[in-house]
Amino acid sequence: MKIFKIGGGIIDDEAQLRHFLTELARVPGRKILVHGGGKGASQMLQHLGIEPRMVQGRRITDAPTLDIVTMFYAGKTNKQIVALLQAAEVNALGLSGADGNAVRAVQRPVKDIDYGFVGDLPENSINVGLLGQLLRAGITPVFCAITHDGHGQLLNTNADTIASTLARALTAEHEVALHFCFEKDGVLGDINDETSVIPQITARQYQQLKAEGVIAAGMVPKLDNAFAALEAGVERVVIENALNINKPVKTVLCRS
Amino acid sequence: MKIFKIGGGIIDDEAQLRHFLTELARVPGRKILVHGGGKGASQMLQHLGIEPRMVQGRRITDAPTLDIVTMFYAGKTNKQIVALLQAAEVNALGLSGADGNAVRAVQRPVKDIDYGFVGDLPENSINVGLLGQLLRAGITPVFCAITHDGHGQLLNTNADTIASTLARALTAEHEVALHFCFEKDGVLGDINDETSVIPQITARQYQQLKAEGVIAAGMVPKLDNAFAALEAGVERVVIENALNINKPVKTVLCRS
Repeated sequence: MKIFKIGGGIIDDEAQLRHFLTELARVPGRKILVHGGGKGASQMLQHLGIEPRMVQGRRITDAPTLDIVTMFYAGKTNKQIVALLQAAEVNALGLSGADGNAVRAVQRPVKDIDYGFVGDLPENSINVGLLGQLLRAGITPVFCAITHDGHGQLLNTNADTIASTLARALTAEHEVALHFCFEKDGVLGDINDETSVIPQITARQYQQLKAEGVIAAGMVPKLDNAFAALEAGVERVVIENALNINKPVKTVLCRS
Repeated sequence: MKIFKIGGGIIDDEAQLRHFLTELARVPGRKILVHGGGKGASQMLQHLGIEPRMVQGRRITDAPTLDIVTMFYAGKTNKQIVALLQAAEVNALGLSGADGNAVRAVQRPVKDIDYGFVGDLPENSINVGLLGQLLRAGITPVFCAITHDGHGQLLNTNADTIASTLARALTAEHEVALHFCFEKDGVLGDINDETSVIPQITARQYQQLKAEGVIAAGMVPKLDNAFAALEAGVERVVIENALNINKPVKTVLCRS
């Protein structure tokens, strides 16, 4: 089973999004798509005079912001992706975490920062039974980055976290590969050379590359997250270009 | 199996919506909810300088309008309803017609009026197999009034039409009751007397009441639609107050 995660960049470019979805339709076997949000929500918030506030790369989600991100992520983007996949003969079904209680989160506790309506994913947050039923029925679940707390509150939740939490939870019943798709062909050995993709990185090599400063700072949280998923039983984590998922160039991360 | 349809009025009043959903949670057995849109989409369109255009009670849906109604209906409203039902222990799962190819529409052909991205529902537009799987899994599907054409285009679709088309399609496998919930207690015998609810109306009585002008003009399309559903095999159509679905006062329509 393959879980693909795409980010905001590709969602903001309709031609690229269509290209990715066409390629995704060619991937055989069971699959799940998790998508982040694009710039649309921020632009709408600005247009409405609600200034987006970010702290450490995370959006502070007050009530009006939650409304707008829910509209964009769960409404416009999710349904557009589902309709395009249906046109490509993929039986996609869009889900927020509230739908079928698919992903239950807890609102992030206030410490130094009050993130507002932001969800963190504890153990057992994934409804593995529901996903099994959908996958067995030939459905491709398409997750947006909105979850709920089970008490009626929707929560804005990091899409990378949803993807890796799904991957971990599904390892009990499936052999899971987790694919992080972004705008580069993989992890670069030289940040100034787009062709320097490292084909494979073990956990030990990753520690070394990180110590040597070879891995770009922006990649570190993503790769830490990826190796944690491998430790938790995910079979394979792949870092690849969203436009080239069916081409051989990519970085495969492995436990050893 | 009961299909409930609620309109925009109750969606615009959060206290009333919560009350309805709490009552819906008390209804035993399999159920489906279909919701219309509230005023939020029109307000947002006006705020963005896109003037809503209505012809014969139907919104003309151009591309920017489709984006906004998709955000409100499939995003904000649908997910808010699903999260509240989950909190009330109902395993709700929100769907547009694109999700799982649940409702496939055709874009309304241009005759006198170009309605834009508006969907009509032909025969066989309902994915009965998917709904059967969801209902058997204990899920309560929650439909918004957005469908797709199967070729990647989302379409704005009348919620009453979705509800009655679902009811007709599901009669093959289920005994279906279709509940139209609105702001009055039922069909009134005297439009100026809210207590004059007619408890039961047969098809023959309806023709007579219509001929006598007793039925208010605004109710005629809804009731024509309802009696057509009965003719097509729906077991029972109920017209009732969204705030009192578990109380006995209501109008039950029946074939004879």
